Amino acid sequence: MEYQQRAAALAQRLREKSIDLAVLFNQANVRYITGFRLNRAASSILLIDNSGSLTFIVARLDYERARRDCWINRENIFFFPEDTPDYLKILHRSLKKVKAIGIEEKSITYYQFSYLQKICGDGLKLKSIESDLSQLRAIKSQEEIEMIRRAAAIADEAMTKVFGVIKEGMTEAEVSSYAEYVMKTEGAEGVSFEPFLMSGENAWLPQRLSSQKKLKEGELMILDLGAIYGGYCSDLTRTFSLGDLTRAQERIFKVALKAQQAAIAAIKPGMKAAEVDGIARKIIKREGFGEYFPHLSGHGLGLSIHESPIIDRGVETVLKSGMVTTIEPGIYLPGVGGARIEDMVLITETGYELLTRVKREVI
Amino acid sequence: MEYQQRAAALAQRLREKSIDLAVLFNQANVRYITGFRLNRAASSILLIDNSGSLTFIVARLDYERARRDCWINRENIFFFPEDTPDYLKILHRSLKKVKAIGIEEKSITYYQFSYLQKICGDGLKLKSIESDLSQLRAIKSQEEIEMIRRAAAIADEAMTKVFGVIKEGMTEAEVSSYAEYVMKTEGAEGVSFEPFLMSGENAWLPQRLSSQKKLKEGELMILDLGAIYGGYCSDLTRTFSLGDLTRAQERIFKVALKAQQAAIAAIKPGMKAAEVDGIARKIIKREGFGEYFPHLSGHGLGLSIHESPIIDRGVETVLKSGMVTTIEPGIYLPGVGGARIEDMVLITETGYELLTRVKREVI
Repeated sequence: MEYQQRAAALAQRLREKSIDLAVLFNQANVRYITGFRLNRAASSILLIDNSGSLTFIVARLDYERARRDCWINRENIFFFPEDTPDYLKILHRSLKKVKAIGIEEKSITYYQFSYLQKICGDGLKLKSIESDLSQLRAIKSQEEIEMIRRAAAIADEAMTKVFGVIKEGMTEAEVSSYAEYVMKTEGAEGVSFEPFLMSGENAWLPQRLSSQKKLKEGELMILDLGAIYGGYCSDLTRTFSLGDLTRAQERIFKVALKAQQAAIAAIKPGMKAAEVDGIARKIIKREGFGEYFPHLSGHGLGLSIHESPIIDRGVETVLKSGMVTTIEPGIYLPGVGGARIEDMVLITETGYELLTRVKREVI
Repeated sequence: MEYQQRAAALAQRLREKSIDLAVLFNQANVRYITGFRLNRAASSILLIDNSGSLTFIVARLDYERARRDCWINRENIFFFPEDTPDYLKILHRSLKKVKAIGIEEKSITYYQFSYLQKICGDGLKLKSIESDLSQLRAIKSQEEIEMIRRAAAIADEAMTKVFGVIKEGMTEAEVSSYAEYVMKTEGAEGVSFEPFLMSGENAWLPQRLSSQKKLKEGELMILDLGAIYGGYCSDLTRTFSLGDLTRAQERIFKVALKAQQAAIAAIKPGMKAAEVDGIARKIIKREGFGEYFPHLSGHGLGLSIHESPIIDRGVETVLKSGMVTTIEPGIYLPGVGGARIEDMVLITETGYELLTRVKREVI
């Protein structure tokens, strides 16, 4: 079973690093191993020792459901009382004899860390397992790719439906909440992030949230949205307009699209992330908009909306078959507008496959 | 100006604790002082020294907007590059001469903590300011109460609209995403949490998320939702049904409502949180459902959906005028159903004021 293989792969890495036990607080990592969809308000902790044995601690309100739905043996699932400061108490027993513990240094809070230190005493060695989990999760299995395909298809569907209803006078918030409603009624378990539509000057800021501003003719608009299906995220952006545009507006749209298409066309396993970024960045720079492209060219996604590989300047990560990433260079030109086209790409043995398909040239 | 008063009140506490500088990572705390609505994908850091001087560091994509919209002097607003592991570099300058630093121990990650320690050297004292911020935020100003009233009214409106459209055969996910859509089109800047509808056995689990299960006659259903307005959260739950119910179902509904109403009626400043919890809990226990009420009786809310005061067993917090809390005892009885009625209450000089008003007896 795939979840067991994932636990075994992590345990293998713990042995290689001489770690006795890892304590996972990052809920995306926990879901990667357990497959369990936690209720959003609650948290959980997963312990895995270097033989692969698991202990899963969930909120009391998730307990019955975890025992019913999760593949982990029921006798290894426990609960901690909700809203109690001492919720780590249950860890005592498991941690008493541990010498080296694996932690996610970017997820664990200082409070949790201090608590672990108090339980384990001064001899305890803390070792990071952040990159191990990140590397394991970066290569998607067939089963994961199927989930991501569904999440991408739901995003495509929401974008298509928005194109069908959008008109002058609607607010940014109205359009983006409609997009969210479509995704959820199409079967999404949630959204990767609150979708946002940025129009006119909001697009060139770029402000990355939807306001009560009304849409007008002659503006560039950027809509960014993503669905979650089976825990897996999608992410999709299109730039469009109502009515005629100026030549300057058309130009930034065309350059952003050209940069994106060139970067995608070049993708294959063995390339470095920075090389892909460089292809998009070079085109935008050559056309005179280098300083108006202030962000990365793309990011991996899966159980998290941002994960390895990050496609940006200086990133040495080598692309491999089974990775999934966005490609999304953008141009934000004060007084003119903003333009970004974002698609999701699966890296294959020989090149790439596009996962999002909705029409790009809609201005 | 209110934000300046908040910064001054925090600086006063830093002086009392001999803290030179506080570094805030918790985005609700940052918004409390800055008033700035961050885009959701990004993060920010706020530094405040014990004289009240502020340094606000935002993502590059939030920079222009922060300089335009935030009350803090423009020359004290900086940006860090997005997606760069060295994003704390900008703190170096401010932290070099600090001896005692204030941190939010439950928000700061181990990685951030280690970074601060590296900058400041071994002589650094770390002191928690978690409870200081929590205490300041617990007493709401008139301006904050107005935001909360609007958020509560939007939640009431969504619940009313759901009552108007809900029918047999709709899925839990469909109803809850409709509620979210209503809140956003009514002016919410976001939702306090993804609303969820739990029906039939999902309600007695209780599973606290919406599934693709279809609604049937003769089931108890619990809908929990909340809007964000001006950064402030609301939270509202109603229990209802389609078609006739059994006497057992009616009974748990009536007991849950009676417990909630009794706890609300008793609220006044000077009471301890545990006393209010005790009133609801005693009634549910007396009626024989004590073991089927597995959670707290309520929680404060404001810029966060869960904050002080927590209304639960053993909580010594004394209620004060200006606090806002939910009251929401529940009963989840396997084979029968779930029932929870949740309202928001403002504690006043003489008692309380209800902030949510939509009809409670709808089964």
